[in-house]
Amino acid sequence: MASKKPQLDSQVTGKKKKFQEPAVTAMPVVPFKYSNRVVLKSILQRMDGGLGLVGQRVVIGGWVKASKEEKEEHPPLPPPPPLADDERPGPASPKHESRVGIVQSRIPFFRSIMKVLGGPAKPPIREKLEAVRPATAKPAPSSIVLLVISDGSCVAGLQVVVDTSLAFPSQIMPTGTCILAEGVIRQPSVQGKHAIELKAEKVLHMGTVDQDTYPLSKKQIPLESLRDCSQFRPRTTTVASVVRIHSALTSASHTFFQNNGFLHVQVPIITTTDCDGFSEKFQVTTLFGKAGKMAEPTAKDTEDVSLEVVMAAIKEKSSLVEELKRSDSNKEAHFAAVQDLRKAKALASQLEAREKSKQRTSLKTDTVKLPEDFFPSETYLTVSGRLHLESYACALGNVYSFGPRFHADRTVSTKQAAEMWMVEIEMAFSELEDAINCAEDHLKFICKWVFENCAEDMNFVSKRIDKMSIDRLQSTISSSFEKISYMEAVDALKKITGKIFETKLEWGVALTPEHLSYLADEIYKRPLIIYNYPKGTKPFYVRINADGKTVAAFDMIVPKVGTLVTGSQNEERINVIEERIKESGLPREQYEWYLDLHRHGTVRHSGFSIRFDLMVLFITGLVDVRDVVPFPRSFGKAGY
Amino acid sequence: MASKKPQLDSQVTGKKKKFQEPAVTAMPVVPFKYSNRVVLKSILQRMDGGLGLVGQRVVIGGWVKASKEEKEEHPPLPPPPPLADDERPGPASPKHESRVGIVQSRIPFFRSIMKVLGGPAKPPIREKLEAVRPATAKPAPSSIVLLVISDGSCVAGLQVVVDTSLAFPSQIMPTGTCILAEGVIRQPSVQGKHAIELKAEKVLHMGTVDQDTYPLSKKQIPLESLRDCSQFRPRTTTVASVVRIHSALTSASHTFFQNNGFLHVQVPIITTTDCDGFSEKFQVTTLFGKAGKMAEPTAKDTEDVSLEVVMAAIKEKSSLVEELKRSDSNKEAHFAAVQDLRKAKALASQLEAREKSKQRTSLKTDTVKLPEDFFPSETYLTVSGRLHLESYACALGNVYSFGPRFHADRTVSTKQAAEMWMVEIEMAFSELEDAINCAEDHLKFICKWVFENCAEDMNFVSKRIDKMSIDRLQSTISSSFEKISYMEAVDALKKITGKIFETKLEWGVALTPEHLSYLADEIYKRPLIIYNYPKGTKPFYVRINADGKTVAAFDMIVPKVGTLVTGSQNEERINVIEERIKESGLPREQYEWYLDLHRHGTVRHSGFSIRFDLMVLFITGLVDVRDVVPFPRSFGKAGY
Repeated sequence: MASKKPQLDSQVTGKKKKFQEPAVTAMPVVPFKYSNRVVLKSILQRMDGGLGLVGQRVVIGGWVKASKEEKEEHPPLPPPPPLADDERPGPASPKHESRVGIVQSRIPFFRSIMKVLGGPAKPPIREKLEAVRPATAKPAPSSIVLLVISDGSCVAGLQVVVDTSLAFPSQIMPTGTCILAEGVIRQPSVQGKHAIELKAEKVLHMGTVDQDTYPLSKKQIPLESLRDCSQFRPRTTTVASVVRIHSALTSASHTFFQNNGFLHVQVPIITTTDCDGFSEKFQVTTLFGKAGKMAEPTAKDTEDVSLEVVMAAIKEKSSLVEELKRSDSNKEAHFAAVQDLRKAKALASQLEAREKSKQRTSLKTDTVKLPEDFFPSETYLTVSGRLHLESYACALGNVYSFGPRFHADRTVSTKQAAEMWMVEIEMAFSELEDAINCAEDHLKFICKWVFENCAEDMNFVSKRIDKMSIDRLQSTISSSFEKISYMEAVDALKKITGKIFETKLEWGVALTPEHLSYLADEIYKRPLIIYNYPKGTKPFYVRINADGKTVAAFDMIVPKVGTLVTGSQNEERINVIEERIKESGLPREQYEWYLDLHRHGTVRHSGFSIRFDLMVLFITGLVDVRDVVPFPRSFGKAGY
Repeated sequence: MASKKPQLDSQVTGKKKKFQEPAVTAMPVVPFKYSNRVVLKSILQRMDGGLGLVGQRVVIGGWVKASKEEKEEHPPLPPPPPLADDERPGPASPKHESRVGIVQSRIPFFRSIMKVLGGPAKPPIREKLEAVRPATAKPAPSSIVLLVISDGSCVAGLQVVVDTSLAFPSQIMPTGTCILAEGVIRQPSVQGKHAIELKAEKVLHMGTVDQDTYPLSKKQIPLESLRDCSQFRPRTTTVASVVRIHSALTSASHTFFQNNGFLHVQVPIITTTDCDGFSEKFQVTTLFGKAGKMAEPTAKDTEDVSLEVVMAAIKEKSSLVEELKRSDSNKEAHFAAVQDLRKAKALASQLEAREKSKQRTSLKTDTVKLPEDFFPSETYLTVSGRLHLESYACALGNVYSFGPRFHADRTVSTKQAAEMWMVEIEMAFSELEDAINCAEDHLKFICKWVFENCAEDMNFVSKRIDKMSIDRLQSTISSSFEKISYMEAVDALKKITGKIFETKLEWGVALTPEHLSYLADEIYKRPLIIYNYPKGTKPFYVRINADGKTVAAFDMIVPKVGTLVTGSQNEERINVIEERIKESGLPREQYEWYLDLHRHGTVRHSGFSIRFDLMVLFITGLVDVRDVVPFPRSFGKAGY
């Protein structure tokens, strides 16, 4: 594609001169591997601002961010020939019927003939993309259009010069129009803010915009309004930057854990385990499904077994287990009996749950036969994967997971959506302090990564969203995090006289977001670790400290955001876990599998959960997580 | 920790001599950063098999894989002192009550005194871990126990020599016992299969096993049986290897896409969009939730609006929109009216859906007031993220997603679980051929990565699971994939005379797994791309080819597994998409947001979905995906 030698005139580079330009050789720009276009980043993010590419012929694609028309003469515009039919992305016109007629009339008769004649029967995979308007029909340009095109690969846009013989200004100029154009990179004739521009010679594709209904036609739409059109949000410069930073964070986080020898494990989304005993959960069912397809009866219909029968079986099996245990002769029989008992208990709890669920939804069970649900027991969308992860840590040492977690929380919060991604880790042979150190190293690593890999986006963020964002990154990387116990946090907050908190603090009271933000934003002004919480404020699986009152939990609080990481050393002593489940009023049957882990080969272990999407808030300074989650869901808002 | 200089006697290295050993210097072994133990991989996977570490003192932790006792003399064993209470992981005994008593009696009185005296008030984060049995009480060893310990970091285990003065053989020897031990690395006194061993000097932690109920006490449990105890599966050598390979694949896949400039985007799990129109879906609800917490009434109660009223409003708004469009004077008013109309339509479809849902579940709505669901419309667990991803591709170019997808499919298959992970990608300005090339490059990259990074695991896999696994990797890396059209596939299968297929082939019939495996396993014997399918066999969004009958879809079929990747160039022509939605009988309202993408700035684009967990089957030769998914869910089986 590089047909001409670039002619670099270093006199004209203007403000780009601040870079010590290397002796530029004619390195041809490489098109993206899986398309015939060149990604704009590879042109615009060169050290020389693209000047080394002057004279090269490239194909670029993207969407119009800004445009203006420059008229040179004023003859009547010759009407451009109509678009090739394949390329016409018409407005939502009701032309369906005729449309299909056109498509079908295009069956390549030629190919069938070739096949009969024994020619190459293989149909070509790629259709040839031809110019929207053939280059031969080029009249003298009467005016030109200047477009700034962005393809989402970087903040900067490329200036593209299209003369009006190639496309109607009214079609190509609206914000959001998609174009794929071939042309030659050159220096602008008029010195402006662009170091280079593309002189278009062919417009290969144009995706027009219906300005009346396109929400981004307006300038400067507030982020709140954009939430109602998630499908278009990433076309704005701000959201695009946020997405690129979000993606870099994903990459950084995986790299951190893989480099430190952690194994990635997928924890289940659909679960029967209440993973923290605190949160409101979504249920998963197929009972509302298409009735027709649901009707198939199945062999395992638990409806036909009554709870009474199962309870009797449990009683019987229990004594059998006891008997076999005492006799100690037949270990296999004992093991089998234990398994049977466990199954019977699980069945009982399913039946109970079903009974309750029936009562709740007021189904008239005596007359209506319930269609059987997909799963035999109540299933939820997971709130946390830490318990499941623990079972892998108790075999493989250090594991992590990266995925969506769910809270059916009806209160609206800027820091919580119904569906958010978390990174969770678990380490065998590790304690509270290890987890804290790992969480701190992880955050610093992430910040360093963004600092080194997202310079352009961070500059944009600091200009448009939060002036302090780059300073915050730097200070997070260099500072050591403050570490205080819950007790010390309470003491520090009690000393405050100038501020009255909504929730009065006493030992044992959970710290609210208000307390936490005061600590991080006003008192310490940097990331803060609070550890050793009162046991009532944390889930049953957190390890009880020697004092019997506090547990080995920690939270990492960061300025502007609040709680970013929640972690703990988990309880490894089976008797203590059993006691804590009982105390917390949780259904023990649900946790038998988890208790098993600590019945057999238990070990000290610790881990944490990172509220991943909040990391993006911390780094960018945005305040609402719904501006960061691509398709946010919250109470009353399901989106697409 | 490295207190002694290692003494390497290269005469004794035995079979490890095949490596050209470098001049070994006393590089101390580095403990894992977030624990005081050394990860076994860093000892056992050294080029010298660990010989360079002889004489070093280390702490290691892991689980017993095998054990034997070697008696040297036979005096009566002195009873070891009882375990420190903190460290006793007793069987599921009903001692809860007394247990708490003990814990609470241990409040460190010392610390309170220190505080009173003005000493360091800060409680230490880490509790000191002391030897299970104090070293001072060491009598002359009467016998020793040889343990093989694994910590999941590699296939190989470390031999640990424990003399019986440190722990009861009956407690430390059972398979699955967890130990954390400090000792010195040495060469075994008797030449065996271990190049080095650890002579334990302290046992810092022991997590015992109740052999009667521990399912892994038996040797060689078949994989099917292990599925019922997912919490223990990774403790088996086979599943541990599979997890490590799975994790490496995750890392490889992210690396491939990030290196090629793709941005990672989280697509939603909870969705209101039927993403392929084919699959059975799970619904998400909070209607079965805890009744008490659900009762709060909310402002937005759509129950109070009747469908009739909304339909009337739609009619009114529609004519308003038409009127404003014609007049062309007030663009803002037109835009607002369009938005209103859209909202009204969405509300109508919600009400309709709710009406239907009520009828299905036979709720007596006239007497019972429904508790309001969390979301106002029916929500599903996503089947595919490609449509959502498309909206990001139509702004940012090349994007990918990595996460769980759901199918409520009641048929049992070895290649499908209810919850499986997929990698999905979407590229703007790309066509069918580009997507095929990218999928091929991705698979080759993945195979190369495993080949280079998982040598020990692949050796194990080829010994224990599938002899051909390494050959398959190598041939996938080096061969070019066969590419045939659907037509050619049908022709090839029709020529087969020695085999009768259950589904008779005709043009237009979807290829079944039986056909596909015959093509990949018998005819081509390597990965195979089939493209240009009849349009009836693929979802509405796949682009119609010029022949009007086939669509630009492809599948990648691999030996042993079947369909690994499903991809397509998607339709960019708005009129065609509208027509296809209508033809497929899908509810158009659900897809308005998707249509928007192609109404405004549409572009040619292509992408694919990789059934990620099946990749592990392809690489290891395992046949059932439930042995690969950590916590598999399928019809009637919800697991934990």
